[in-house]
Order: sequence, then C-alpha cells, then structure tokens
Amino acid sequence: MEHDYPFLRACRRRPVDRVPVWLMRQAGRYMPEYRALREKHSILELCGTPELAAEVTLQPINRFDLDAAIIFADILLPLEGLGVGFHFAAGEGPVIEKPVRTPEDADAVRPFDPTVGLGHVLEAIKIVRRELEGRVPLIGFAGAPFTLASYMIEGGSSKNYLLMKSFMYQHPEAWDRLMRVIREVTRDYLAAQIEAGAQAIQLFDSWVGCLSPEDYREFVLPHSAWVLEGLAGYDVPRIHFGTNTATLLEAMKQAGGEVIGVDWRLPIDRAREIIGPDFAVQGNLDPVTLMAPRELLVERVKRVLERADAKNGYIFNLGHGVLPPTPMENVDTVIETVHGYGRR
Amino acid sequence: MEHDYPFLRACRRRPVDRVPVWLMRQAGRYMPEYRALREKHSILELCGTPELAAEVTLQPINRFDLDAAIIFADILLPLEGLGVGFHFAAGEGPVIEKPVRTPEDADAVRPFDPTVGLGHVLEAIKIVRRELEGRVPLIGFAGAPFTLASYMIEGGSSKNYLLMKSFMYQHPEAWDRLMRVIREVTRDYLAAQIEAGAQAIQLFDSWVGCLSPEDYREFVLPHSAWVLEGLAGYDVPRIHFGTNTATLLEAMKQAGGEVIGVDWRLPIDRAREIIGPDFAVQGNLDPVTLMAPRELLVERVKRVLERADAKNGYIFNLGHGVLPPTPMENVDTVIETVHGYGRR
Repeated sequence: MEHDYPFLRACRRRPVDRVPVWLMRQAGRYMPEYRALREKHSILELCGTPELAAEVTLQPINRFDLDAAIIFADILLPLEGLGVGFHFAAGEGPVIEKPVRTPEDADAVRPFDPTVGLGHVLEAIKIVRRELEGRVPLIGFAGAPFTLASYMIEGGSSKNYLLMKSFMYQHPEAWDRLMRVIREVTRDYLAAQIEAGAQAIQLFDSWVGCLSPEDYREFVLPHSAWVLEGLAGYDVPRIHFGTNTATLLEAMKQAGGEVIGVDWRLPIDRAREIIGPDFAVQGNLDPVTLMAPRELLVERVKRVLERADAKNGYIFNLGHGVLPPTPMENVDTVIETVHGYGRR
Repeated sequence: MEHDYPFLRACRRRPVDRVPVWLMRQAGRYMPEYRALREKHSILELCGTPELAAEVTLQPINRFDLDAAIIFADILLPLEGLGVGFHFAAGEGPVIEKPVRTPEDADAVRPFDPTVGLGHVLEAIKIVRRELEGRVPLIGFAGAPFTLASYMIEGGSSKNYLLMKSFMYQHPEAWDRLMRVIREVTRDYLAAQIEAGAQAIQLFDSWVGCLSPEDYREFVLPHSAWVLEGLAGYDVPRIHFGTNTATLLEAMKQAGGEVIGVDWRLPIDRAREIIGPDFAVQGNLDPVTLMAPRELLVERVKRVLERADAKNGYIFNLGHGVLPPTPMENVDTVIETVHGYGRR
C-alpha cells in the first residue's frame, strides 16, 4: 500500500508524516553481522545465494529505523551473462577478465535473459518481500548502461577513463551497439525485479560524472532514457542516480524517472532549483560526515534537511555509499535526526 | 615585456592577436625526448637537477608552437622540507612515507625556507629564463595547501578522501594549524619562484573537487586566499586551478587571482558566466579528446573557442594534464586550431 510508506509517497511528491531515509550500501562492512557473513562467503556467493542475499538485505532493516530496504546485489552481476567475466581481487575492487577493447570485442557482447541468468536476484527479492511482511518497501536496482560499459572497457575502476572515452570517440558506432545491448539487458533486469516484487528501482550511473555535458548528451542520455522509458508502464518510482553530476542534472532529468539522486558536491537547494518541481530529489550528505563528531554530524544533517524543503518530494540519503569504517551509532544519529525533523 | 606575450595579455584581459595556448603536463611521457631522459633518470632526479629540469621544461617549447612554458617540477616537492618524505612507487603514483594521521603528526609538520630546501627549482627557473631568451613567458607553480594536506594525510592518491575528511571533521584545530604551516611554505615558494624569474604562477588545487562547497569555504578557502593575497604585491598573474570545481567556482574566485582554471565538466561559457567579467578563464578541453580522430578533435577545440569568447581574457588549455598515450600530432592539431581561430 503505497499510501502508507513515506518513502514511496516522497518519490511521488505526496505529503509525508516524516521525512523518509535510506542509505546507499546500508548493508555493508560497517555492520558486524555483515562482516560475520563475509568471513564465510565471498561477495559473489552472498549475491548468488538468494537466502544469503535476502539475509544481508534485511540486516540493516532489523537494526535501524530505515524507510526502505534495497536488495543486496552488485551492479556488475549482469556482466557474466553479457559474456564478460569478472571477479573481485583482494583489496582492489572488481577486475574484468576479458575487457572490451575493440569494436570486435564489443560486438561479441550479446544480450541474455535476466530472468534466467539473474534468477537468483529475483528469487532473493521474493524472499525479502515475504520476510519484510510490509514493514518497509523494497528497492531494486541496476547499474546504468554507461557505468557498466565503463567497467567492461576499463577492466575495472579507473582514474581518468582514458580507455572508455577513447573507445567512445574512436568507435562511436561500436559504442552505440554496445550500449544498445547493455540497455536491453538493464531494462529487462529491472522489469524482472519489479515483477518479482521490487516496489521502486534505482538506476546507478555511478561514474557518469567523468563526462562533459556534451559527451553525456551524445553518448549516454539516449540509452539511459530508453531504460527508464521502458519501465514507465510499471507503477513503481524510478530513481536516477549518479555522483559528480552537478553539471549533468539538466540532462539527467531529461532521461526521465521520478526521483533524481545527487551527491554532496552541490547544495541540495541548488540541486532542487536545477532539477525543478517535477521531480523528487534524493541525497546528499557526504558519507565521510558519518566519521565526524556527533554535534557536527547532527548540524550537517539538519542543514541538508532545511535546504532540501524536506517535507516536499525529498528522500534523505548519502551522496554515495556508507563507508566501511562508519560507526553504527552515527547511522542511528542520522536516522533519528531525519525522523525528528519538523516534529514537535 | 608583458605587452608582447599573448599569454600574459590574456591573463590581464587585454586584447590579443591570437588566442594563447599551453597544456598542463606539456612536458611528459607522450614525448619521445622526455621518455629518453626518463630511461636514465627518475622523476625526482629530473626535478632535483636544475639542468635536467630546465631541459625537460624546454622540450615542448622546442617542438610545439606553445605560448608559455611551465617549470618542470612536482607539486609534492615541498613535502620533503615539511618533514613528510615520499617516493614514487612503480606504476602507483606517490607514496607518503609517514602520513599525517593524528593532531600530533600534524603539529610535527614545520615550515621551512623554500629558497634553501627548494633552491634547485629556483635554479632551474633561472636557467630556463636564460635559455628561453624571451621566446615565451615562464609559469611557476605550486600545489595548493589543501591538495598537499590531502596527500600528507591520505598517504597518496585517494578514492574517497576518507582519512583527509575524517581528520578535518575530527580535528578542525589541528587541520587549521597544518594548513597554516603549508600555506606559509606555499606562499614563500611561489614568491621565490617569481623572484627567480617566473612570469606567472599557477596554484594547483587538483583534488579540491571532492569537497562540498560548505567544506571548501570552511576548511580551504581562507588558506588559498592567504597564499594568493600574499603574492598580490608582485606584478605577475596568478592562476587558480582545480578539477571538478563546477560547484566551487564562486568560492574559488573569492580566493583571488587573475585567472580561474576549469576542467571539462562544465561548458566554458557556463564557467565564464559563473566566474564573471573580473577574471580571465583557462581551460577546458577533456584531455582524452586528444585520443579522438582529427575531425572530432578539431570540432571540439573549435566548440570550446566559440563558447569561450576566446579573444577576451581567455587561455586555451586542457581541463587536466596531457595523458601519456597522447599522439604528438594531435597536440599540434590543437595548437594550430587555437592559433587559427578568428584569423582569415
């Protein structure tokens, strides 16, 4: 029942009793119960085993007064089905086994059916929905085509995105074909998550902030828009998120969705000004603020709330994921401060 | 003679015959003559030997039709004198030997006299000025206090600046004391470079774009302003540069200087709008554009020039340094396109 959930109401810019809050990477290494599971299982084992993925998804919900759960998964999961294997190297992040470096490599990337290849995520969604028993809504998500393509071409994380941008400039047709394959899988994957029970979805275009606005419009926007448009028929809010997007917000809102997620690099009031009244906004506390002393943390959370016009189409979140050394009491402080906002 | 140099004239927003162009890291691994020297010497040997630093500085001037030279040095050179040793690990970038992690570590950082500790840079400046024989003006530079402090605390490059920001939030007084020590050395170092013959200076705040505008104003702006103000008595233009600064430009211009340098993340016309008519502007081609086919490269350079109001207080540059795999003919293409702009 959407009308009962502050998170879903805020996504639709409907009145809320309290400002909703969830945190990107709210299930993660800062929680002892997560670390305990990680001692026994790799990330990919956790993602690949529906019962475990469901358990991790629920860990922060059982501990904190959060307004939404987000399915535990990794944005790179679709790469395997796309024929581009990857693994996590110790302390190094993801490593793509056969990076896409030529038009021929790109043309070898083929779409697949995520209801088969990623059935374990869909199964985890069903378990979580059952176990949540309606306590909070569940968010599904996927990496946006650009961010997936970047990983596939760079072979992992990148400092200056030299290989990805070079590919884009040198082989614009092959880039376009690659993005069309990825976008199809991304749309199908998100649609399947909705059909499995996700009550909202977030499209993570985490690395898009490395682009100039003109490159974004030319090489990325049409594909993100295609994914979001392809989900418009479902009655679930679509969150479109990236970091470092201060100069891309006008283009990102053209790509569609109900909610735009922003990082901490621009004040949230300025973000709302740019994004305009037709979208809800999610963000934008710097995750490192959770390492600050309580007094400073509370002050910063309140400042975001005051600037955000927080009772009006706004969801509190960080500007990026919770960092591993974050003290858990500071997560509580953030949530309490958000929920206390505007109350007597 | 300032009136003869398009670069210095543009810095002062005086009329120019041709749009001036220089490129950050114009002396670097993309040049075979630089690679030849690097086979025999480490970066720190090149920086530490005035004759070699001068030779490297002049390499791009002898090969390309550039409008300014910039002294070959590394922004981290002052760290040694500040008592924080570092070296370059193979393929990994700089590694700080004893990072600053506590207020006690910060208080152990002491100022030093750059005319002694960095005399080799000043000597290189004198040699370059002699050898240039007035062909083009010479730019001196230093890392800004924030970027140096970030390296000192993080211990090297960083993805999310967790340690630096945590230090800043947890120990604001120690942060302030550290920044005051660094800013003193930075000001003295730049003043000494000017006295040795630098005809303009650039303050590189390369990593400042990781901060929210409020953190920038609170923790950084006063110190950068102090450095720039301390150089106002010299008759040389001061360039204030950072990457990822779209949301910081209003604050950066308050810090002072004659020229604001910007990266590719915002269109140059929008940057000029924010920065206003009282500053010259430098930038802003994405360095990866130099990997594009000639036609696209020329189109992108022309687009920057057209948007920049290029004959009016504008210096063409990249948004960050030249990348190692850059083809040299593309550097020529950029320079020719810039110099051809607005000519019959």
